[in-house]
Amino acid sequence: MGHGYTLAELAQRSGCELHGEGDIRVTGVGTLRHAGKEDIAFLANPHYRRYLPDTTAAAVILAPQDAAGCPVPALVAANPYLAYAHIASWLMPARPHRSGVDSTARVDASARVHAQAWIGSGAVIAAGAVVGRGAEVGPGCVMLEGAQLGEDSRLVANVTLCERVSVGARALLYPGAVIGADGFGIARDGEAWVKVPQLGAVRIGDDVEIGANTTVDRGALEDTVIEDGVKLDNQIQVAHNVCIGAHTAIAGCTAIAGSTRIGKRCMIAGGVGIAGHLEICDDVVVTAMTLITHSILVPGVYSGSLPMDTAAQWRKNSVRFRQLDELARRITSIEKKLKD
Amino acid sequence: MGHGYTLAELAQRSGCELHGEGDIRVTGVGTLRHAGKEDIAFLANPHYRRYLPDTTAAAVILAPQDAAGCPVPALVAANPYLAYAHIASWLMPARPHRSGVDSTARVDASARVHAQAWIGSGAVIAAGAVVGRGAEVGPGCVMLEGAQLGEDSRLVANVTLCERVSVGARALLYPGAVIGADGFGIARDGEAWVKVPQLGAVRIGDDVEIGANTTVDRGALEDTVIEDGVKLDNQIQVAHNVCIGAHTAIAGCTAIAGSTRIGKRCMIAGGVGIAGHLEICDDVVVTAMTLITHSILVPGVYSGSLPMDTAAQWRKNSVRFRQLDELARRITSIEKKLKD
Amino acid sequence: MGHGYTLAELAQRSGCELHGEGDIRVTGVGTLRHAGKEDIAFLANPHYRRYLPDTTAAAVILAPQDAAGCPVPALVAANPYLAYAHIASWLMPARPHRSGVDSTARVDASARVHAQAWIGSGAVIAAGAVVGRGAEVGPGCVMLEGAQLGEDSRLVANVTLCERVSVGARALLYPGAVIGADGFGIARDGEAWVKVPQLGAVRIGDDVEIGANTTVDRGALEDTVIEDGVKLDNQIQVAHNVCIGAHTAIAGCTAIAGSTRIGKRCMIAGGVGIAGHLEICDDVVVTAMTLITHSILVPGVYSGSLPMDTAAQWRKNSVRFRQLDELARRITSIEKKLKD
Repeated sequence: MGHGYTLAELAQRSGCELHGEGDIRVTGVGTLRHAGKEDIAFLANPHYRRYLPDTTAAAVILAPQDAAGCPVPALVAANPYLAYAHIASWLMPARPHRSGVDSTARVDASARVHAQAWIGSGAVIAAGAVVGRGAEVGPGCVMLEGAQLGEDSRLVANVTLCERVSVGARALLYPGAVIGADGFGIARDGEAWVKVPQLGAVRIGDDVEIGANTTVDRGALEDTVIEDGVKLDNQIQVAHNVCIGAHTAIAGCTAIAGSTRIGKRCMIAGGVGIAGHLEICDDVVVTAMTLITHSILVPGVYSGSLPMDTAAQWRKNSVRFRQLDELARRITSIEKKLKD
Repeated sequence: MGHGYTLAELAQRSGCELHGEGDIRVTGVGTLRHAGKEDIAFLANPHYRRYLPDTTAAAVILAPQDAAGCPVPALVAANPYLAYAHIASWLMPARPHRSGVDSTARVDASARVHAQAWIGSGAVIAAGAVVGRGAEVGPGCVMLEGAQLGEDSRLVANVTLCERVSVGARALLYPGAVIGADGFGIARDGEAWVKVPQLGAVRIGDDVEIGANTTVDRGALEDTVIEDGVKLDNQIQVAHNVCIGAHTAIAGCTAIAGSTRIGKRCMIAGGVGIAGHLEICDDVVVTAMTLITHSILVPGVYSGSLPMDTAAQWRKNSVRFRQLDELARRITSIEKKLKD
Repeated sequence: MGHGYTLAELAQRSGCELHGEGDIRVTGVGTLRHAGKEDIAFLANPHYRRYLPDTTAAAVILAPQDAAGCPVPALVAANPYLAYAHIASWLMPARPHRSGVDSTARVDASARVHAQAWIGSGAVIAAGAVVGRGAEVGPGCVMLEGAQLGEDSRLVANVTLCERVSVGARALLYPGAVIGADGFGIARDGEAWVKVPQLGAVRIGDDVEIGANTTVDRGALEDTVIEDGVKLDNQIQVAHNVCIGAHTAIAGCTAIAGSTRIGKRCMIAGGVGIAGHLEICDDVVVTAMTLITHSILVPGVYSGSLPMDTAAQWRKNSVRFRQLDELARRITSIEKKLKD
């Protein structure tokens, strides 16, 4: 991982407080348990505090309250995970910059690909598409007519950008992501369905990350919008005309139905379902596998899933759930009797 | 969007009742709030009624009860969303018809591709596959041995049809859809698993739409069947030997386990789970994130998910859920005491 | 399906007990209801016992307790589904072995592809990647830098193996599977997020099956690990640094959050969510759509999802759920009153 940095250099650059010798040199990163002797580790999740006393790391990035228990030099940070993120990125070898068009790629004559962009093997860039300076379109990716990819953005491999989708700068899209498929717009006509044309596009801001096999549908009339700094994990479904506010992060397998607007800086866990046409305000946190069927107008933490139990115990309670309304009526009736 | 139509023309062709001047010409569509001055808008979801008084649209498609409140000419329809679907499709520019085989596509010598079909860049058509008249196989799509695509059907991009899958006419499959992967058939042998050969195929009818990254597995012995007019949203999982009846619509991220039969004209919301070997009759509606573990033999609406709450309140109630059986016993015991 | 086997041959090879004439020849397999006259059927799920008396099959593989009711010759097995799996695989025509590199594939000069491996149309094998003897890389698959595919493994089509992912022998990966995308590692910095480098890889053992559109993320520091014999259905999400123990089987649409360790021989149903940093011990069974938020240290069956009801009945009970804590308090208060 390169020649690395001394702890003093890392402390200065990251703004951490150095505890211990500053001239120790670290060249890589590792876990508390398995770090090599030139690796720096970090402690952020208290779950892993038990590994600190015996750590094999050269040094550890940790919070003030853990500094006393650290057997090796430490970089002390208010947010050790953030400090680690920066330090790990400095220690990583930079990805080599690539440019040029692979001979097996297919670039339409009317597409505009920047001379410093890279188009990988088998990629397809259709008419009118635009690939910005420093952008990378990996192997097997498809950009349909008029799709745009901003500067220094990367489509890793097998990503699809449909017609007129635009992606901002420094975006990172993982394999299997599909941006701009038609929204699920159908109108009933007797027993059949008539397709409602999906005429909008998808607009994705800067510094957005979109996970593997995540899908973001194009808008019906206006655009589906993913604002700057949004981070989407794998296998998320974003329906037509959803708007996701800046710096919101969403974990895997969450689904958001059409026309819902999600605020800024929200944190939505995995497997959540959000119904259509809702407003979720800024700074909302939703726990895993919750179903949201009403708008949320007050920042805070929201939940909606039951904790598992042994199947035997669960069965007893879930049978009672089906009697819950009746049980409540019986309580009221008892109370009435006692009063009389 | 072309030279458009007068309101009188649209009223006649769509069967809507015209309120206001018939010679106003519309050339496009828009939302109530943002339509341009040559755009027609629609009002179907009452949620958006508040935008009607100030609409910027040239005209609005709406239901009889909304006609009086419309400040601009109106096309009045019993089902405004359906009327809009038709009108929008007429106002859209037709997609140009494409035919021919891109030079970077790979078509096996034994495949049959109609002269008026289109095979896009990097697409692969394996031995014995058949592509019908007017069909389009977009960039990066793969049709494995013996797969068949019907007339005027379209695989948008990066779609995979596995061996011997057949797709009818006018189907529309979005990127990342995978039709005909092996079903999840495994038999336990001591602590290991033995693969059960998946010998069936998938048969998809006419006028079917299949969303991005949706998967439909091939049958174990007989075929998995998707009947005519079925509409599947994104990221749906359809296991081996499922049969989905004609004109059933299913929203995103729903999963259907093996050998279940779903009736005609059902509407199944997103995130629903349906266990295997069940029968769901015609005209069943299921709300979001419901788990179905028993057959449904009576048409109607079925639910199974709890509405979210603040995390603090939720925690209190969910703890009680684990005591529910005990609570019910206590109620019975109280009732007994009162009786004695 | 080839010239087939006599029942006596099948009985001997599979270890089944033969009931009836041994010289009957079967050439294929079918269901109890629709098998042809040279087909063998099986009865494993009691749900289908009703089709046994009128079966059209030449013979049936079944359990001892069903032998008496079988109108045709039978192969009797303790585990009929397993016996069927073996027998069906013998009756199937073997897939033809393919080798060579398609002219439209792109293999980097530094990649090592065994002479008896096959690289299909449009596949991309990047620098340093390795494809073992007898392995198949189907059309449209991408192996990024340093990815490794073991002997006799198959990537069906449009599969993506990211940098340095390694897959063992005899693995089977279905279309749209993405192995080794970056884990969802982000650290908050004010209102924005900083990416945490994902430096680990994914190590997949031997005899693993991975379904269509399933995603397995690379580890943050150490590797994500899928041990030998694991079977993953479609659209499963496996986050960074998860470890799945040998011979565990997981059904579709289940999601496992980061750093969770799942034991050996577990059976996890579809739509399950498992939170991060948990330990699930060996031999755990989880039913569909359960959310697991705590470690499971005792083998057994665990559940957490409610059975659906008619929407009307469901609504009544789910309203009461929000009063559950209050109802419990009222019961306690009544009990107190009765005691006084």
